[in-house]
Amino acid sequence: MLYTSTKNQRIRQLKKLNQKKYRDESNEFLIEGEHLVQEAYQKGFLKELFLKQGIDFKLDVKTSYITNDVLKYVSNLDNSSGIIGLCDKINSDTIGNKVLILDEIQDPGNLGTIIRSAVAFNIDSIILSDNTVDLYNDKVLRATQGMIFNINIIKKNLLSFIPELKNNGYKIYGTRVNCGKNLKNIEKNKKFAIIVGNEGNGIKKDILNLCSDYIYIDMNKNCESLNVAVATSIILYELDK
Amino acid sequence: MLYTSTKNQRIRQLKKLNQKKYRDESNEFLIEGEHLVQEAYQKGFLKELFLKQGIDFKLDVKTSYITNDVLKYVSNLDNSSGIIGLCDKINSDTIGNKVLILDEIQDPGNLGTIIRSAVAFNIDSIILSDNTVDLYNDKVLRATQGMIFNINIIKKNLLSFIPELKNNGYKIYGTRVNCGKNLKNIEKNKKFAIIVGNEGNGIKKDILNLCSDYIYIDMNKNCESLNVAVATSIILYELDK
Repeated sequence: MLYTSTKNQRIRQLKKLNQKKYRDESNEFLIEGEHLVQEAYQKGFLKELFLKQGIDFKLDVKTSYITNDVLKYVSNLDNSSGIIGLCDKINSDTIGNKVLILDEIQDPGNLGTIIRSAVAFNIDSIILSDNTVDLYNDKVLRATQGMIFNINIIKKNLLSFIPELKNNGYKIYGTRVNCGKNLKNIEKNKKFAIIVGNEGNGIKKDILNLCSDYIYIDMNKNCESLNVAVATSIILYELDK
Repeated sequence: MLYTSTKNQRIRQLKKLNQKKYRDESNEFLIEGEHLVQEAYQKGFLKELFLKQGIDFKLDVKTSYITNDVLKYVSNLDNSSGIIGLCDKINSDTIGNKVLILDEIQDPGNLGTIIRSAVAFNIDSIILSDNTVDLYNDKVLRATQGMIFNINIIKKNLLSFIPELKNNGYKIYGTRVNCGKNLKNIEKNKKFAIIVGNEGNGIKKDILNLCSDYIYIDMNKNCESLNVAVATSIILYELDK
C-alpha cells in the first residue's frame, strides 16, 4: 500500500497522533527513526510500519509506504529518517522492588532522559503523577532512546499510592536540595521508592510529608541545584551500587 | 534612555548578538532573565542592562529601557522576562587541578547542563575543543543556570593541550561506553582531566589515544548508553568524593 495524499483518512488519523488528546482517545502513539522502531519491535510493541517510498527496511509487521509529502505532513522532525512506527500504548501494572516516582516533571527531554537512566540503573517501575508531561510526546520518546520499551511506567494518584507502598514495606525517599541525609550515606533498603519533583518547585509539600527519609546531593555552595534529570540519575546510580 | 525603535543602531547591534559571528567580532554576549543577570552582576561580568519599560529592577550598572516591541525584536524567548544583560566574553586561562575536557559536544542544553554540574562538583576548569557548540549560545547560557560565571572555561586545540597536561602530571581519563575501569573502582589522582566526547560518536580516536586510563559506568545491558550530560555528571560526582 502506498499513501500519496495528505487528505487520506488514515494519514490524517496518524497526523492527529501528534496531539495528546488523540493519543488518549485511540490508545496509540507514533515513534520515528530506526533505533526507536527496532526497540519497539523487539519488545513486541510495534503494530504497524510506515516507510518513505524507496526506503529499504524490513520487519515482520504490517508495512505501508508513504510519499515524501505525506512524510513531511505526518512527521514532527525537520529531517525525518522516513521510518515511522505505530504502537499501542504500553499497559503495565507490575510494581517491582525499586520504584522511581516523578511528581510533575514538565520538560519532555528531562522525562525521557530520566527513563533512560532508570533502565540503566535497574529501576523496576516508574510512577508518574497525573500532571507529568505526556509520556508519548515525541520529544520524550526520542530522549528515552527506546528505553521506554524496557521498563514499567504507570500513572498513579501519588497521595493514595505512596501510603500503599509504605504499608507494603517500601522505604520512601524524598529528594530535597539541601536537607536530609547526604546521598553518600544512605543505607539501602531492599524495597524503596525515590520521589523526584518538578523542575522549578521540587516535590509538592503534601507529597513530601509522606516520605520516610530525605536525600540531598552534596555540592559546591556556588551551585544551588542540579538539572533534575542529572540529580535523579546520580541518585539512581548511587542506589544501584 | 528609552529605546523605542527596532531601527535604532544600538538596538540592531544588540539583536545581532544572537548570532555567533557577531559575538565573536564584538567579544560580547547577551543574557536574559533575573537569575542569569544577577549571577553575571555578582561576578562582575555585567556591563549594561536593558529593561522593558515599567520593570522595577535595579543594579549598579548602566541601565537603559526598551519598549515591548524592541524587547520582542531583541529577545530569543517567547515569554521574555524583560530583563536583558550585556556582558563581555569571559577570558580566563588558569588551569586548576581538576579539569573537564569536552570534545565536540553539540547540543546546547547538554553543554549548559554539564557546566552547571561541573561547578556543583568542584571542577576547576573546563576545556572546549574548537568544534564544540558556541558557549555564548542563549540555550547554553540558560541551561548553565548562571554557573558559567563561576568557572574557568577555555578553548584549546586538544591534540596539543592534552600532552601538555600529561607532562605536568595530570592523569588523563577517557570515557568509553563499555571498556576500561569501572568508575566505582577508580583511584583518584590529585591532578586529573576527564575527557567526554560527542553525543553520537564519543571521543575521537586520536584524542582517545592520548588518555592514560579509560572509565566506564556500569549499567543494565538493555541500556547502551546514558545521555552525555548525565554520564559526565555521574563521573564528576564520583570523582568529587
